Amino acid sequence: MITLWELKGKDGRRYSMFSWRTKMALKHKGLDFESQPVLMSDKAAIAFSGGKTVPIVRDGERVVRDSWQIAEYLEDRYADRPSLFGGAIGRGMAQAFNTWADRTLLALLMPVIVADLYERVDPGDDAYFRRQFEGFLQSTLEEARSRRAEFAKRLDRQLEAWQAVLKRQPFVCGAAPAYGDYILFSLFQWARIASPQDIIAAGTPLDQWRGRMLELYDGFARNVPTA
Amino acid sequence: MITLWELKGKDGRRYSMFSWRTKMALKHKGLDFESQPVLMSDKAAIAFSGGKTVPIVRDGERVVRDSWQIAEYLEDRYADRPSLFGGAIGRGMAQAFNTWADRTLLALLMPVIVADLYERVDPGDDAYFRRQFEGFLQSTLEEARSRRAEFAKRLDRQLEAWQAVLKRQPFVCGAAPAYGDYILFSLFQWARIASPQDIIAAGTPLDQWRGRMLELYDGFARNVPTA
Repeated sequence: MITLWELKGKDGRRYSMFSWRTKMALKHKGLDFESQPVLMSDKAAIAFSGGKTVPIVRDGERVVRDSWQIAEYLEDRYADRPSLFGGAIGRGMAQAFNTWADRTLLALLMPVIVADLYERVDPGDDAYFRRQFEGFLQSTLEEARSRRAEFAKRLDRQLEAWQAVLKRQPFVCGAAPAYGDYILFSLFQWARIASPQDIIAAGTPLDQWRGRMLELYDGFARNVPTA
Repeated sequence: MITLWELKGKDGRRYSMFSWRTKMALKHKGLDFESQPVLMSDKAAIAFSGGKTVPIVRDGERVVRDSWQIAEYLEDRYADRPSLFGGAIGRGMAQAFNTWADRTLLALLMPVIVADLYERVDPGDDAYFRRQFEGFLQSTLEEARSRRAEFAKRLDRQLEAWQAVLKRQPFVCGAAPAYGDYILFSLFQWARIASPQDIIAAGTPLDQWRGRMLELYDGFARNVPTA
């Protein structure tokens, strides 16, 4: 059995964006896992991993941290299961997309939902979360909330290209979902758990794709506590 | 022998961005081809293709147009040669990247270089080019030039993520170049042929990657008339 460490939010919410990449990858590989929710501020609980962030996966004796490292580990260790990357070129492109998404989309999405997310983290993380995210944002959470409409517009402009991508093919990775889809999905799943706002307009190609992603693996990502 | 129709610029310049995707794909597959330069305004010369844009490829009896369609054609027809996509997942991700790049990067790059490019098109295309690109830009070429510094800054912000990607791995597609690299490269090759400005800072990961791309296939893309 594989154990996954991920963030613990209020009322059973599991909001760690990077952990969603790992959870979808585990499902893709057909691997069972047990979740270990931890506070974002509780670094002692994950010190065994040698790092300070989740996700962390323990598979027998092996401990792997960082969602990208975990994806590569799962692909190589479970090479006989459905592929996350489809070979060397697909792996390279997925790594490129992973880096791009974290630098571009995540940076655009964070200010839109962060104040809502703050209300849904475990109360034990209140102070830590505020300090951490106000550092990322270079502003207070309240300032981010007051400028939300402007940030949402900027995000929307970047999402236009993804609307076009998903109008052209059903998944980021073509006819069927793979790790590239889990990267993009993790952002929207994070938003879905963090915030009552819907950042994707209903009926658009991106919305329809998200619907397909939520159906995967018996509605695995749909049937979780959300905002 | 394969024939490729591409745009004819001043003094032997071959500036069609999409045709560079096709030329690099042909080289990747190890296929010889003969270039047929045409004016952008000369729609009669390419009417046989059923479309109004280059690139067009004729391979024996078969005519294929649109750089993405050509890439898929080459991959399927020459399946025994080095792969452009590395399988279904890589093909899906490449198509996603292709759509994204045209909607995002191309739109950011065009206003930075378009006034310079105008000076390097075939004189026979002057009026057509101005009409066409002033339509895309929703401004005159002169207005675009006067706001160049602002556009360059906006482009640079989007390129930061690609600097991070190429710091992490030598090519967009991982350890070796493939179609994802040709997509990104086509934009910078277009800029290199169109404009004396260097839109990539020397010594950066993106600059080093471009250097590797220019070396491929005996310096195929390096040894051409540029701005």
